[in-house]
Amino acid sequence: MKYRLLAPGPTPVPEETLLELAKPVKYHRTPEARQILAEVLQDLQYVFCTRNSIMPMTSSGTGGLEAAIANCLPAGSKAICLIAGRFGERWRSICKAFGVETVAVNVPYGQAVQPEQLAAALKAHPDAAAVCSTLSETSTGVGHDIAAFGKLVAAAPALLLVDAISGLGAMECRTDDWHIDINVTGSQKALMLPPGLAFAALSERAWKATEAARLPRFYFDFKRERKGVAERSTAWTPAISLIQGLRVALQMMRAEGWPNVHARHERLARATRAAATALGLRLLAPESPSPAATAVMLPEGVDGSALFRYLRDRMRVTFAGGQDKLKGKIIRLAHLGYVDAFDVVTGVAALELALHHFGAQVELGRGVGAAERVLAEGLPARG
Amino acid sequence: MKYRLLAPGPTPVPEETLLELAKPVKYHRTPEARQILAEVLQDLQYVFCTRNSIMPMTSSGTGGLEAAIANCLPAGSKAICLIAGRFGERWRSICKAFGVETVAVNVPYGQAVQPEQLAAALKAHPDAAAVCSTLSETSTGVGHDIAAFGKLVAAAPALLLVDAISGLGAMECRTDDWHIDINVTGSQKALMLPPGLAFAALSERAWKATEAARLPRFYFDFKRERKGVAERSTAWTPAISLIQGLRVALQMMRAEGWPNVHARHERLARATRAAATALGLRLLAPESPSPAATAVMLPEGVDGSALFRYLRDRMRVTFAGGQDKLKGKIIRLAHLGYVDAFDVVTGVAALELALHHFGAQVELGRGVGAAERVLAEGLPARG
Repeated sequence: MKYRLLAPGPTPVPEETLLELAKPVKYHRTPEARQILAEVLQDLQYVFCTRNSIMPMTSSGTGGLEAAIANCLPAGSKAICLIAGRFGERWRSICKAFGVETVAVNVPYGQAVQPEQLAAALKAHPDAAAVCSTLSETSTGVGHDIAAFGKLVAAAPALLLVDAISGLGAMECRTDDWHIDINVTGSQKALMLPPGLAFAALSERAWKATEAARLPRFYFDFKRERKGVAERSTAWTPAISLIQGLRVALQMMRAEGWPNVHARHERLARATRAAATALGLRLLAPESPSPAATAVMLPEGVDGSALFRYLRDRMRVTFAGGQDKLKGKIIRLAHLGYVDAFDVVTGVAALELALHHFGAQVELGRGVGAAERVLAEGLPARG
Repeated sequence: MKYRLLAPGPTPVPEETLLELAKPVKYHRTPEARQILAEVLQDLQYVFCTRNSIMPMTSSGTGGLEAAIANCLPAGSKAICLIAGRFGERWRSICKAFGVETVAVNVPYGQAVQPEQLAAALKAHPDAAAVCSTLSETSTGVGHDIAAFGKLVAAAPALLLVDAISGLGAMECRTDDWHIDINVTGSQKALMLPPGLAFAALSERAWKATEAARLPRFYFDFKRERKGVAERSTAWTPAISLIQGLRVALQMMRAEGWPNVHARHERLARATRAAATALGLRLLAPESPSPAATAVMLPEGVDGSALFRYLRDRMRVTFAGGQDKLKGKIIRLAHLGYVDAFDVVTGVAALELALHHFGAQVELGRGVGAAERVLAEGLPARG
């Protein structure tokens, strides 16, 4: 049976990129390899909307987040963690592991942290050294207003650290204009690559903070990486094949045009929400939806975990389920990376069919129709 | 022109493995993915010669070494670093970054640290919490007698940490029998994979040390990884495509038979040394040679850096040059991973031709002949 991946990371990888991964491995300290890395890092500056250099790391996204904490926070300092879901929680866990005191700003899962909440936290904790947020909180399908957060944090001594792992590339994220001090992403989301690479962009404020920071780091030492990047190289042996693949993936997105990439994600997300609503399903995050993934509440009486497994194992359509307290209650449809209108149609149709099979009251085709009414906007002009 | 990679990492990747990397990416938390990971980790136990579980990390080998230090050494403790080259130096740099005091046991580049030197260091520093060594010191082509080190360290309270990145798989390394407490390797050496994965095996003593260790760690937290591995999973999103590829590479090595893999490396190394000697070239490490790579001293009057670049850019044969104070003085011929007799013949022929082109007195074919006399031992039996 055909396999279909509609989870919020890893995401489907374009065939052109996969073929790049199958090319013979070449030595990484050569003029040719330097040229490839330089091209990738330059393209990424465009994706990050930054004039600053991009630091590459061979790790999952989590490694990039750890790097942000370990390089820029003094031990014993304080960080405000904006927590709207599991990935906000991860920021707090990393801070704790590194002996950084945390102030949590929590919202119920499905809601976004509001700028006023951050303003109040900054006022109550003027000594905070950092504010940690997610761009897209994939566990709930919430998107954060980083531009508003950035305005507030820029006026404070704190640094703004953003986990943009599942959002960057899928939505606009203007690192410099929005005053993001460290912006981190991973390869296996909008960048259409297998997992294994992380990237960070640092502001001048962040680089200055690395001077004072005394937490131990070696593999994730931004200063070593910066020295590497200045020589169009990396501090440690990089995942070369992934860098080769990323060059091709970035070329594809450049050809599509970044505004078009963002508009596509926004449209696919809107179509997915329209479909769920038409099917009578509630959205977990109706107010501040992320363009990366949509969390749909499953109807009462449907065993969500069984539905998820049925979709994955019998229909071979892999969504993501709910995590922790959301387990079995939601299903997350990703529209992230190498996906188009027909992937959304497939996802919605699979959900309709599976719900029907599980005895829920759904009118087959109703969700797909609602999705198509949105997707029609994205049709190419007639020739 | 054909490209030939004869450097000690990254090493050539078999076509079968490359094709595996080009397969569609699938979700990593599924029964299917768990099965693949479990098979890989089980095969690796065999490579490591250990009954203990293997901890997978998505990083270069350096990340695995940092993990060993950060998880098992108390801050402010003392480590004896056995330094026979650049990679021994790396152990010391990591210890320094993590506030671990270091005692260096140095030998001139080209020599191996002797067990008696370690015995003396252990006697002088009975409070040492760890001894850090390389198995194969690739920067000089030296192999260390880890079995002898292990006997000494087992009688002390210290842990034995081994950087087996370029050696494991190319030579016997009996983790359990030799009392190695943490044994670390990477994917891009004998394991015939692109860079991006590291692995560590921990002894019970090492696991006990993780309890007392208080250095901060999160991404490289062995206890989180152990929990993941118990569920046939990983703590963080792994480099899935590399794990898929590794399964195939391990299948190939299992089919060859590990004793045969080791014998092949030993034979190719011996052939390379015989060739260099026949050409009148001195070996940097004649006494304790590594089966992974051979460092050959270049004749006086030959510009080593220019020779290296000529081989790489004009003949498209990539060796490794010398690093730091060995720059321009040596050339390192690797015989590591997916390599056979004809790769050694090619490497030696390329070296003869390049030396000839640079005006050195070499009899063309003499090195190849000497290599063939050794390689003849490995010929298959007549049908």
